[in-house]
Amino acid sequence: MTRELKSRLTPDIAAVETVLDGLLSTAAADGESERPQRLVSAMRHATLSGGKRLRPILVIETARAFGRSDGGVVQAAAALELVHCYSLAHDDLPAMDDDDIRHGKPTVHRAFDEATAILAGDALLTLAFDAVVAEMVHPDPAVRLALVRALARAAGVGGMAGGQMLDLLAEQGGRAEDHIRRLQAMKTGALIRFACQAGAMLADAGDSEIERLTCFGATIGLAFQLADDLLDVEGDPVELGKAAQKDAAAGKATLVALKGVNWTKAELRRLVSEADDLLDPLGERAATLRAIAHFVAERRR
Amino acid sequence: MTRELKSRLTPDIAAVETVLDGLLSTAAADGESERPQRLVSAMRHATLSGGKRLRPILVIETARAFGRSDGGVVQAAAALELVHCYSLAHDDLPAMDDDDIRHGKPTVHRAFDEATAILAGDALLTLAFDAVVAEMVHPDPAVRLALVRALARAAGVGGMAGGQMLDLLAEQGGRAEDHIRRLQAMKTGALIRFACQAGAMLADAGDSEIERLTCFGATIGLAFQLADDLLDVEGDPVELGKAAQKDAAAGKATLVALKGVNWTKAELRRLVSEADDLLDPLGERAATLRAIAHFVAERRR
Repeated sequence: MTRELKSRLTPDIAAVETVLDGLLSTAAADGESERPQRLVSAMRHATLSGGKRLRPILVIETARAFGRSDGGVVQAAAALELVHCYSLAHDDLPAMDDDDIRHGKPTVHRAFDEATAILAGDALLTLAFDAVVAEMVHPDPAVRLALVRALARAAGVGGMAGGQMLDLLAEQGGRAEDHIRRLQAMKTGALIRFACQAGAMLADAGDSEIERLTCFGATIGLAFQLADDLLDVEGDPVELGKAAQKDAAAGKATLVALKGVNWTKAELRRLVSEADDLLDPLGERAATLRAIAHFVAERRR
Repeated sequence: MTRELKSRLTPDIAAVETVLDGLLSTAAADGESERPQRLVSAMRHATLSGGKRLRPILVIETARAFGRSDGGVVQAAAALELVHCYSLAHDDLPAMDDDDIRHGKPTVHRAFDEATAILAGDALLTLAFDAVVAEMVHPDPAVRLALVRALARAAGVGGMAGGQMLDLLAEQGGRAEDHIRRLQAMKTGALIRFACQAGAMLADAGDSEIERLTCFGATIGLAFQLADDLLDVEGDPVELGKAAQKDAAAGKATLVALKGVNWTKAELRRLVSEADDLLDPLGERAATLRAIAHFVAERRR
């Protein structure tokens, strides 16, 4: 990440982490009994142990490009990050991808135990829906309801969870290019796509603008995954904070494995240029989003 | 269950299962990519393999006691059942309660595999929030948002998921009566309480009536758990459709183990009488709810 982009995003990340810290309090909210210390600790470990915060950043910077920038946007952004962090806690489980290290730290089931990691993921997903209906997110209840629905569809059987299912099945076959693309559009693409969609919705962008930003999200979602696959082949485990070359070892279907490194790098350039085009109508207001798209495609970790 | 109660509830159950069947379609909804067949099959196995449907019945019969009875109530009731079924799929996992049989059939991870059972639970929980925001649930968006929030708090870190965490910890100690009561109020009580609260909210009951029905739900939630613990001690595995005497084998803290069978039966009578009192102001309109409370406390499976 360039120093300039980093300094622009640092306050976003700090704001999101402050909201996450508040949501993950041991104090029971209205309508709750008590919050067990161990479960809260595991949820905090899953959420507050680092990470790029790409999805919440995209919510915040998309809303900002359309002129909205306040605590309600950060609240919605934090809700989305809870969904992302739940998915990592579950994907890392022994029955799934069986990872011991994430962001350079033990995964949730290694730091606690499997049962606690399952429950922490469940509780994070549940908390996300609590967080996204907060009044501050948007004054119009209809918009908050639309966000609940869109988030559920991005995360559920026809989105992220479905994509993880396809990915597990892909280990036993199914390596055609279009299958891998669909899988990745669901597994990692859906939440990144939702991030940009939500940012535009939160800022009351028009329907065609929401649609264009949703496309932008889908495009950088695919770029993110390609860059990830490339890092798995070429990356340094120390810089990554997790094991490298896991995909090949697990026999995972990736476009890098299917089409090669050079094709992947060219495809990444094509996607960044497509993302740039989608932002064109926003002009200078989209400068940060444009920089994020470049970072996503060119990142080294 | 008396033949009379059964014949009154059969149409409720059929209506809920029709909605569940529709929600668990392989057809992608708007905003979804595709729904992987295997994941949908596992979600259907978790949801449509039997069960008493107590929670959706309570939503429907509570709303009916306040004069509302239509498809929107059934939709909300089905959403709650999705949350219950997700929790069973996860609680049955080897890392949690490690159960092979549920409703006389293999549990989800036995019929499929652990990864699929985890994802199916995740996707069911997510789908519940999609289902509960449907416009038909209530014409006022504020009520639908309040339902999302109440459902999230009943199901999450300070409700059901937190209760399961306390239950797992209780296996290593913590057998004081008030600890067990709090644990059970969260683990099984929270969703049953929400069922009655939601039914009253859906039918636009007044605040004090919503509060009274929420108390009613909490009371029969506790009765339900006591009856369950009693069945684990005294029940017939064939009638139960699952293993008996698992609690003692697992060293689980239950009030039956702590206070004995006679105390538990007396406590159940006390709770039923308390539930009756809470329904008094509703008179004949609450006849079915009253019959359900008696069934919950006196059931043999």
